[in-house]
Amino acid sequence: MEMDYDWQEVDILAGDTRTADFLAMNANGKIPLLALPDGRFLAESNAILCYLSDGSEFFGGEAFARADILQWLFFEQYSHEPYIATSRFIIQYLGSPPERQADLLQKKEGGYKALGVMEQQLQKQEFLAGDRYSIADIALFAYTHVADEGGFDLRDYPSVRAWIERIEARENFTGM
Amino acid sequence: MEMDYDWQEVDILAGDTRTADFLAMNANGKIPLLALPDGRFLAESNAILCYLSDGSEFFGGEAFARADILQWLFFEQYSHEPYIATSRFIIQYLGSPPERQADLLQKKEGGYKALGVMEQQLQKQEFLAGDRYSIADIALFAYTHVADEGGFDLRDYPSVRAWIERIEARENFTGM
Repeated sequence: MEMDYDWQEVDILAGDTRTADFLAMNANGKIPLLALPDGRFLAESNAILCYLSDGSEFFGGEAFARADILQWLFFEQYSHEPYIATSRFIIQYLGSPPERQADLLQKKEGGYKALGVMEQQLQKQEFLAGDRYSIADIALFAYTHVADEGGFDLRDYPSVRAWIERIEARENFTGM
Repeated sequence: MEMDYDWQEVDILAGDTRTADFLAMNANGKIPLLALPDGRFLAESNAILCYLSDGSEFFGGEAFARADILQWLFFEQYSHEPYIATSRFIIQYLGSPPERQADLLQKKEGGYKALGVMEQQLQKQEFLAGDRYSIADIALFAYTHVADEGGFDLRDYPSVRAWIERIEARENFTGM
């Protein structure tokens, strides 16, 4: 969106999201959190995406087109993130401790199921929602393109891999 | 919204969402699913709420007001439903089997945390998002008002209980 912003690092492992100051900004104690210049706050990564892209080419159109995008954002939160992003967190940030191995194994099933749903959709169309790149793609690109760091192998998901490449090749693409 | 609709019962325990016919409508194999007269489908309960109420008093206003509502819908999917609704499912639909007791115990913590976040917000305001009743309240009312069926006690959440009563007292309220 080419907006100016300040990025403030928050260390969840150090308890930065459990301080009284942070909880006053977001009672749910989670990042990311958007702080607006006028003092308002907005939590939930996907609500932040919706807000920042509201009415733009990335989240516009008529009611069904927007709901179609939202459908993928809710899919991301319920059927994708708890498996793929959480596995990556356990492996990369917690060092894959022995007591989380059963958990990781269980998350394999849900994660591959989510990748299967994406594969099926991306066999049919270039982007997840409608006929163009949207915040549905941005939200799902985030943890899908680093799924290998969560122990997921994209070999059997060629349409997902091609979609990742299409996104990375876009003008203005900025890696995280 | 006073729209006409047909309600079609789908029995997830009987595998109705795993049939080829159902998966052709929703590759993620989940209910609810909205089928439009023109043959389009929309999955994800909260995307359906957004679509049906788009532009109405329940999901309108400027970008931040809508994002504020969306923030609660994502909270519902990520921080509330996996604990409270899932506990209710394990108890009421699966008969609370011995092998799920550890799971239920673990879900207690997350569920009470979500209720605590709601309690804090509802101490400050009458409804969850902004200054009026919206689909944020509708989405979170659903499993909160039957939280006891998931083993959750609302005794220590007086603002949540008062909010439930406010919603049930609304004109046009229809119980599930």
